[in-house]
Amino acid sequence: MGITLNSDERLDTVPGSCYKIIQNIKKFSYGTDAVLLANYCNIKRGSKVVDLGTGTGIIPLLLVGRFEADKIYGLEIQKDMAEMAERSIILNKLQDKVKIINMDLRNVSDFFKKESFDVVTSNPPYMVNGGGIINSDDNFSISRHEICATLEDIVKSAEFLLRDKGEFYMIHRPYRIADIIWNLRKYKLEPKSICLVYPKIGKKPNMVLIKGVKRGNPELRFDDPIYVYNEDGSYTDEIYKIYRMNKEKNDG
Amino acid sequence: MGITLNSDERLDTVPGSCYKIIQNIKKFSYGTDAVLLANYCNIKRGSKVVDLGTGTGIIPLLLVGRFEADKIYGLEIQKDMAEMAERSIILNKLQDKVKIINMDLRNVSDFFKKESFDVVTSNPPYMVNGGGIINSDDNFSISRHEICATLEDIVKSAEFLLRDKGEFYMIHRPYRIADIIWNLRKYKLEPKSICLVYPKIGKKPNMVLIKGVKRGNPELRFDDPIYVYNEDGSYTDEIYKIYRMNKEKNDG
Repeated sequence: MGITLNSDERLDTVPGSCYKIIQNIKKFSYGTDAVLLANYCNIKRGSKVVDLGTGTGIIPLLLVGRFEADKIYGLEIQKDMAEMAERSIILNKLQDKVKIINMDLRNVSDFFKKESFDVVTSNPPYMVNGGGIINSDDNFSISRHEICATLEDIVKSAEFLLRDKGEFYMIHRPYRIADIIWNLRKYKLEPKSICLVYPKIGKKPNMVLIKGVKRGNPELRFDDPIYVYNEDGSYTDEIYKIYRMNKEKNDG
Repeated sequence: MGITLNSDERLDTVPGSCYKIIQNIKKFSYGTDAVLLANYCNIKRGSKVVDLGTGTGIIPLLLVGRFEADKIYGLEIQKDMAEMAERSIILNKLQDKVKIINMDLRNVSDFFKKESFDVVTSNPPYMVNGGGIINSDDNFSISRHEICATLEDIVKSAEFLLRDKGEFYMIHRPYRIADIIWNLRKYKLEPKSICLVYPKIGKKPNMVLIKGVKRGNPELRFDDPIYVYNEDGSYTDEIYKIYRMNKEKNDG
């Protein structure tokens, strides 16, 4: 089946797999955070998974290469992004495994049965919507700011979708950690593990990975921290491992 | 004035000062956490401070050497500990600056005016009271387990005592961080900064310092992490600085 690439689009490789992903050079592209999130997930064979705010579809594409989930849904509110993500799925012949749905993640109860998923993932917009200066039609703004869905909207939908003891995985900014923990507990997705991502040793963390468990017991584990760069600015061995890259090949 | 030392007691130096502290070799002695907490505080001249669950009085003694607070209260429920702490204060001639009160921190509203303090500190028992195996009369158990006051009791009393924008400083275990953030926000002590303490680079954090601000805006800063030991097992320069120790002297 032929796939059309629009003039602003290019094909990239999904890290650690043979899959390809279509990205638009004028729109939001996936970053390290998506790869870190997929690596943080632990998805059992046969699981039903949904990714809230899937954008280019990078999270489902990363997950499908790493885990044997039964089905992964990617929900995306922006029509053009959802359509592009859908073309990536067709390009990789993954229609049986991944389903992109162009919908508002706040309306999950109209589309899905309550408590019907094992895992929910999200790499949401990080910034609180500050108002005036943001163009709400702009793709970058929607991807970065809480215009279409707030953190609370995402957690609320995750709570609806997850079965008892189902798992919620999210990556976010450390400065939002109080909001994250507050909302997770409020919606019965007890925070169970946190992993802080540091750009370098001795620097402040700039990303946080968190796992919540539906109706889990209150006790939170800190995972070993992840350092992205060595002192000399090169990637750490851990990042090579997370990206499933061959270090020698990249160094040469 | 003569101070009597009981047979099980010894005199130790308060790190970074000329003050002495009486400790009982058969009871709970202060640890690194107390020193880290005092170092994390930033107390303005003339402030009114209260330390909840003061034990040996180590926190007031550390603070009085580092900041020019107007008055520091130390509340302690165990009569013998409060009496020993009081003798340390007299020994150092600090009665004008520090006042130890033998009382249950849950009863602060009987002793103090609402919103009358600038700063509240606490190095509370870390462990949830698990029941059966704990001897509730035992000094070590009271110091380590939430027998006499839960985390929520402490935060609730801090909320009562602190003025608007007053500051709450606490050290605790990272696995309780969800409980901490939940309770701080519940009692309007918005978590504003967090500092994780790692035993070594690459290991999981084993202590967390947190600052809450009464009715503060929701945005949390992660401070630079603290590492306690170098790879070779020696203390890091930072720990020497926090203890106000002379590195050369200790190495030699």
